[in-house]
Amino acid sequence: MKRRQFLKGAGLGAGVVAASVAAPAVVSAQESLNWRMVMPWPKGTPGLGTNAEKFAAMVKEMSGGRLNISVFGAGEIVPPFECMDAVEQGVVEMAHGTPYYWQGKNPALNFFSTIPFGLTAWELSAWLRFGDGQKLWEESYAQFNVVPFYAGNSGMQAGGWFNKEINSLDDLKGLKMRYAGLGGEAMRRAGANVTMIPPGEILPAMQSGAIDAAEWVGPWNDMAFGLYQVAKYYYTPAFHEPGPGLEIFVGKDKFDALSADLQAIIRFAAQAISENTLADFTFNNIQSYQPLIDKGVEVRQFPDEVIMTLAEHSKAAVNEIAAKDDLSGRIAASYLDLVKKAARYGKEFEATGLLHRAKVWGY
Amino acid sequence: MKRRQFLKGAGLGAGVVAASVAAPAVVSAQESLNWRMVMPWPKGTPGLGTNAEKFAAMVKEMSGGRLNISVFGAGEIVPPFECMDAVEQGVVEMAHGTPYYWQGKNPALNFFSTIPFGLTAWELSAWLRFGDGQKLWEESYAQFNVVPFYAGNSGMQAGGWFNKEINSLDDLKGLKMRYAGLGGEAMRRAGANVTMIPPGEILPAMQSGAIDAAEWVGPWNDMAFGLYQVAKYYYTPAFHEPGPGLEIFVGKDKFDALSADLQAIIRFAAQAISENTLADFTFNNIQSYQPLIDKGVEVRQFPDEVIMTLAEHSKAAVNEIAAKDDLSGRIAASYLDLVKKAARYGKEFEATGLLHRAKVWGY
Repeated sequence: MKRRQFLKGAGLGAGVVAASVAAPAVVSAQESLNWRMVMPWPKGTPGLGTNAEKFAAMVKEMSGGRLNISVFGAGEIVPPFECMDAVEQGVVEMAHGTPYYWQGKNPALNFFSTIPFGLTAWELSAWLRFGDGQKLWEESYAQFNVVPFYAGNSGMQAGGWFNKEINSLDDLKGLKMRYAGLGGEAMRRAGANVTMIPPGEILPAMQSGAIDAAEWVGPWNDMAFGLYQVAKYYYTPAFHEPGPGLEIFVGKDKFDALSADLQAIIRFAAQAISENTLADFTFNNIQSYQPLIDKGVEVRQFPDEVIMTLAEHSKAAVNEIAAKDDLSGRIAASYLDLVKKAARYGKEFEATGLLHRAKVWGY
Repeated sequence: MKRRQFLKGAGLGAGVVAASVAAPAVVSAQESLNWRMVMPWPKGTPGLGTNAEKFAAMVKEMSGGRLNISVFGAGEIVPPFECMDAVEQGVVEMAHGTPYYWQGKNPALNFFSTIPFGLTAWELSAWLRFGDGQKLWEESYAQFNVVPFYAGNSGMQAGGWFNKEINSLDDLKGLKMRYAGLGGEAMRRAGANVTMIPPGEILPAMQSGAIDAAEWVGPWNDMAFGLYQVAKYYYTPAFHEPGPGLEIFVGKDKFDALSADLQAIIRFAAQAISENTLADFTFNNIQSYQPLIDKGVEVRQFPDEVIMTLAEHSKAAVNEIAAKDDLSGRIAASYLDLVKKAARYGKEFEATGLLHRAKVWGY
């Protein structure tokens, strides 16, 4: 049934292509490829699904209609957390996602998304393109027979919504919260009662009192979810997600079979969409922040005692991942080397500049 | 003579293309275009010239050799500050540069590069792609009959090299310094004796005592220039260049005459190189910072009194530009609206996160 559903979708896509794109004279109709890209989020999700669609449009435009990618949201062809399997098994040619969604296969994949107190959006891209990041990522994904491309970032996320102030470590103890990834692990080690519930259930779970706190993304997406209706205190920023990376990955056999120009078009369209995606989140988070506060939200930052304890727990969790095997150790060493150097640079350049600017403009 | 020099260069470029790229069978040799791109910096300048070359390589790869761009450094075809004129007059098809180099034509072009206490790299891209930035830029460049594309950023720059500490406004009075753009104007209004000398003359001018202070770019480029040899105090960051934007621009008639797929390839290659360029500066600035400090450099930040006074002078200069004409006013209003919103967001998300991270990693 899924297969039939897919064929129907692909047929529809092909029709749209024929109607809207005049193929260059040099390419005959039968030479055009129709590919499918799955995603772990619904079609049209702001910043995520929308940029996957833009990527497909870029590829179509640059290839003069020779490579047409139809985009499918969560559950349309495969369930959200089976996108990697679908590409690995050749059910679809490619996917849009984020590496830590496949951490069940390999916890070191967290490094290619984000880790607590880790790289910012622009630093993650720096590590991938100019450090060893991309090489190590390709080595990791070779196990699944897929080729990864960095596809952008949601920027520094928010620390989440709390129904009481967090003034000390004691305030975290026993607190029921939805907290993702290694940040959730650090919260658990600090005594919180962490459960991972799907995004769509966060609001009702907060409303019913099933949880006391939850983190989602940042002002733009948090506003859309209406989380200000169920919690008064908004903690900024996310200690655990300073710059979560997105990805596009392609089945290796499918990629290798493409002509050199189409390979280049995929590679550089992914690079272009990575720029667009960070710009999208940056613009919309900035635009959403004051309107969100105007709904009566109280902005807070975690006190130093809480930050430093969460950092110790995070480092312990990261070190356990690094100790798993040789490749995980090499990934961690390369990433952490850059983070440690970036820590001073980021404080004395970007943080200082942003604080000066805030003062100059009245904050 | 310049014309002859150019023809010689283009002939050489065409030979290289024929030898190294196998054109796809669908494109006959006579269909390939050979374009020239000029730059205001020397060929091979780290981060700048190197990324212009990468852009040309991206276009060649994605077009299957149908569009070959030869890159020329400062003075090879035209003098550095005549790149805009060269494209406007059709001497060459395109250029790599930064908008405030053409501020003599229109001071409002500063907004598309950077202004004091303005947008960061990622925010500038947000304004261009999701605010009114790109539309206003195209309207500005239509006067020169060229089409602009954002091509990246050098990130938050450094405040420069000083041979004495700046502890108060009095320390700036009469100080002879090399300081670029609106930052130089703010320094002048604060009582400094500002001269603009070419990059290659900064080191000897500091050595001879002709100037007491100079700003250039950031740790990567400042290290390469050896500026640590002639001044002890390094001020971070640049109040005046929080995220200077780069550009690629194309003669409008040339661009309009391209097929739709080649237009898309230029547009998205520029977007891809914009991501690459920021990653390049980010990676190399971070890697260069500690080695630079290890040369005996003392890192300082301007005191609040100095920052707030430079801000008042900067705002006055910016307001004078905004008052020049209707378009300048609309550019300033759109840009400043985003800066003011970003000021609070950047403090409570990015600056806070960067300070937490610094503490966690020992800074």
